[in-house]
Amino acid sequence: MTDNGTQRRGRPGYDQVGILRVAVAAFNQYGYDATSMGVLADRLGLSKSAIYHHFGSKDEILERALDTALGALEGVLDEPESTRGRAADRLDHVLRGAVHVLVEQLPYVTLLLRVRGNTEVERRALTRRRAFDKRVTALVSEAQAEGSLRSDIDVRVVERLLFGMINSIVEWYRPGGAEDADRLADDVIAVALDGLRMPTSNRVEELLG
Amino acid sequence: MTDNGTQRRGRPGYDQVGILRVAVAAFNQYGYDATSMGVLADRLGLSKSAIYHHFGSKDEILERALDTALGALEGVLDEPESTRGRAADRLDHVLRGAVHVLVEQLPYVTLLLRVRGNTEVERRALTRRRAFDKRVTALVSEAQAEGSLRSDIDVRVVERLLFGMINSIVEWYRPGGAEDADRLADDVIAVALDGLRMPTSNRVEELLG
Repeated sequence: MTDNGTQRRGRPGYDQVGILRVAVAAFNQYGYDATSMGVLADRLGLSKSAIYHHFGSKDEILERALDTALGALEGVLDEPESTRGRAADRLDHVLRGAVHVLVEQLPYVTLLLRVRGNTEVERRALTRRRAFDKRVTALVSEAQAEGSLRSDIDVRVVERLLFGMINSIVEWYRPGGAEDADRLADDVIAVALDGLRMPTSNRVEELLG
Repeated sequence: MTDNGTQRRGRPGYDQVGILRVAVAAFNQYGYDATSMGVLADRLGLSKSAIYHHFGSKDEILERALDTALGALEGVLDEPESTRGRAADRLDHVLRGAVHVLVEQLPYVTLLLRVRGNTEVERRALTRRRAFDKRVTALVSEAQAEGSLRSDIDVRVVERLLFGMINSIVEWYRPGGAEDADRLADDVIAVALDGLRMPTSNRVEELLG
């Protein structure tokens, strides 16, 4: 009998968000398909019916988890700083915001990035991801048109490289490490928008041929 | 009876490289664990013993596949252009070379990037990946020390963001698309080393406050 199992019925020790958090960790560790409701119940120290009290199915848990990640990312695009002002500044804000979402919702975004479209829930998530990518691509386009971003690279390639860099954070970022989200966002902006090369040394090289 | 099955014994229609190619495609599609030697034999139209003629085990196929990707990446670091001259130019060469390896060995690198260390073969591959990352990190360090790369970002973060961007190519690159490897390498260098922001507009903004 676990601590949770000894609690009274109707107060199973986990609310919906608590179950979601444990489920997402299990999905990331074992894979969604390999994680049965029985495995989840074991990990939570709950009966399966206690889980079903909160979620109609495993698919519903996945949908909620993916919605958490997608909702947070879409939220960044809807912030005032993402919709007003110069496109380059809006892009700056969106990239920083995305880094924050990745760091703050790390397990949820990790799960989202592994989705391959095997189920209806996964396919809906991929559709939302593509819509997000399209909105960012449109922003890159605007920034090129206003003359603040170089326009010699295809906007879709730019968007993919930017989010390749940002999404890779889930592979190596560990909370409590040397870099917090603000610092990491600064680093991403520094690499992506300003580049690693020292501008002066670069300019001198060019002048000297 | 397939075409291959009708061929004479000892000439099973696939050499080692041919078997490897089909196996890697299957591993990427279904996952390594989910792909049995029986599934591979079906896909190849060969008997299992015909596969065992070339490879001692499924693990050995995986090892060969991962070695193909890792050997190609390590090869880039050993090229003369990666070992002589200014560190910034060597880094430029290594990043371009890595993009070429990804594009040219796409299925092999895709497999490598999914390795999580579940078996001894996978752990050895991860050790080699880490050694590769360390050599690139050392190169970033040298380029910072010689003053050609900005030094306000931790070298390990730089290396991870650079390869986050490069490795993301396996997620979206399709051979025969609009961009070839040379063009894609140019784009990666443009974003990573020079940045997306237009230097002049940037400078004018700064001057105007």
